Amino acid sequence: MRKVLLCEPNISEGRDLAVVEEVAAQVRSVPGVRLIDYSSDPDHNRSVFTYLGDPEDVLEATKRLAVKAFELIDMSQHHGSHPRQGAVDVAAFIPVRGVETAEAVEISRRFGRFVGELGVPVYYYEDAATRSERKSLPDIRKGEYEALADKLARPEWAPDEGPAVFNARSGALVTGSRFPLVAFNVNLRTTDASIADRIAKAVRHVSGGFRFVRALGLPLEDKGLVQVSMNFLNYTKTPLPRVLEAIRTEAGRYGVTIAGAELVGPVPLGVLEDVARYYLQVHDFSTEQIIELALID
Amino acid sequence: MRKVLLCEPNISEGRDLAVVEEVAAQVRSVPGVRLIDYSSDPDHNRSVFTYLGDPEDVLEATKRLAVKAFELIDMSQHHGSHPRQGAVDVAAFIPVRGVETAEAVEISRRFGRFVGELGVPVYYYEDAATRSERKSLPDIRKGEYEALADKLARPEWAPDEGPAVFNARSGALVTGSRFPLVAFNVNLRTTDASIADRIAKAVRHVSGGFRFVRALGLPLEDKGLVQVSMNFLNYTKTPLPRVLEAIRTEAGRYGVTIAGAELVGPVPLGVLEDVARYYLQVHDFSTEQIIELALID
Repeated sequence: MRKVLLCEPNISEGRDLAVVEEVAAQVRSVPGVRLIDYSSDPDHNRSVFTYLGDPEDVLEATKRLAVKAFELIDMSQHHGSHPRQGAVDVAAFIPVRGVETAEAVEISRRFGRFVGELGVPVYYYEDAATRSERKSLPDIRKGEYEALADKLARPEWAPDEGPAVFNARSGALVTGSRFPLVAFNVNLRTTDASIADRIAKAVRHVSGGFRFVRALGLPLEDKGLVQVSMNFLNYTKTPLPRVLEAIRTEAGRYGVTIAGAELVGPVPLGVLEDVARYYLQVHDFSTEQIIELALID
Repeated sequence: MRKVLLCEPNISEGRDLAVVEEVAAQVRSVPGVRLIDYSSDPDHNRSVFTYLGDPEDVLEATKRLAVKAFELIDMSQHHGSHPRQGAVDVAAFIPVRGVETAEAVEISRRFGRFVGELGVPVYYYEDAATRSERKSLPDIRKGEYEALADKLARPEWAPDEGPAVFNARSGALVTGSRFPLVAFNVNLRTTDASIADRIAKAVRHVSGGFRFVRALGLPLEDKGLVQVSMNFLNYTKTPLPRVLEAIRTEAGRYGVTIAGAELVGPVPLGVLEDVARYYLQVHDFSTEQIIELALID
């Protein structure tokens, strides 16, 4: 099985599209890496890139992207409405296929060391975090670029890589690994939004539900339905079918049925593998059996 | 979406592996074509190749395979237990992704014309058949190589391409297009084989069931279960989930439950797409959303 790692870096430039194109060209310059999307927001003054490929190739593309972004972006001149701390603000490495979290973390650490050696302070977050206060991006980025000089002077904010010295031009970088998020929404045949609220509470982690589910109840007024809108933080440990069936059961308590559901945005193939195993009761199914994958393996 | 066509030719050589390797090398010689499997059976004296890629590339690979097989195989010397009629006995073009049946038929006809021009009689079968008596391979191949000289002299067996003249060295070729077969078996928690028989009858086309299902009841003695063993001839028109639920309902009439199921061998991604749509109730799901496919598109 060929390994597939995805990387999603955010750079602090969303207005000068010539800069964005130069950075994109660096990603494209690595054979075997596929840039599947990039988009810029001028209000945020920020651009997001999404690319994937073999872990080593993705690491190389991310190094090239960072070198170019550090060359072209000056954080001392940056204004934008999105929280940010560095020219390459954050780069998440996301295991998609045949890559364990440990390997994705290792790749993010090799990228962090590379950036540190360029003289840019680096913090590791999510699965690569070196301490619990650094797990979440908002915690690390608190105070943003403007607070960075003071922060770096404090021992508790000593960077994980690179000098504990404010780099006015490039700011600081956050990198690490996280599991791919899956956005799954379930629509209920009722206009009573309180039912969606109660079911969202029943399934989400924070209020006693499933470990890797975030959920919110919403009205869908134009459809005359309500929605349980969810993010799955680890679809292998909390599979979608299990939560869907829990929602069906909870909805049944109110005499409400499921009108439909939505998978929003990109989905790893492993999600479908779980669905086949669960509902077709094919306990031994493997995505290796899928014909099309012969073309990438 | 990149198009993916699969081709599965059978050649009449399963003993001299040097010949088989030379033929395989022809398939591999076309960039973009992926040879995913080939295997030889010495009793049958026959080898099967499976490869896929862009339709034009797959056509080119199949032409090269045929030229090499015609060069190296002499049917007048061929003995084997499997029915056969030609050096390249049959080549099925199977649409996997982004290819309509009409396009696969057109590719098979271009291959047929190419082989006809080499002086080998060609019959079109399955979706490429020119008349109903030529739809099924066993019908076309009746009497095998040994009957071919007589057959070609009869107007009803005039070939679809190539001369109506017996080619002693190469025999005749059958080509065409068919939908990918999906093998799906459902195991029932009973030892009463008559229940599997009755359910197989209920779901299979020939006895009144679903249009694209072939089914058979079998005992699974070592597991203490029985099985409804099925082939789906067109999984888009008769989707697996619909038939699985019909089996569940029928089994319920006898108080029997489904113990599990098996998807055997290669499966097109479209099968999983149907499963997600049906059971997750995600009516708008598209395989385009699957992250890994970015690498082949």
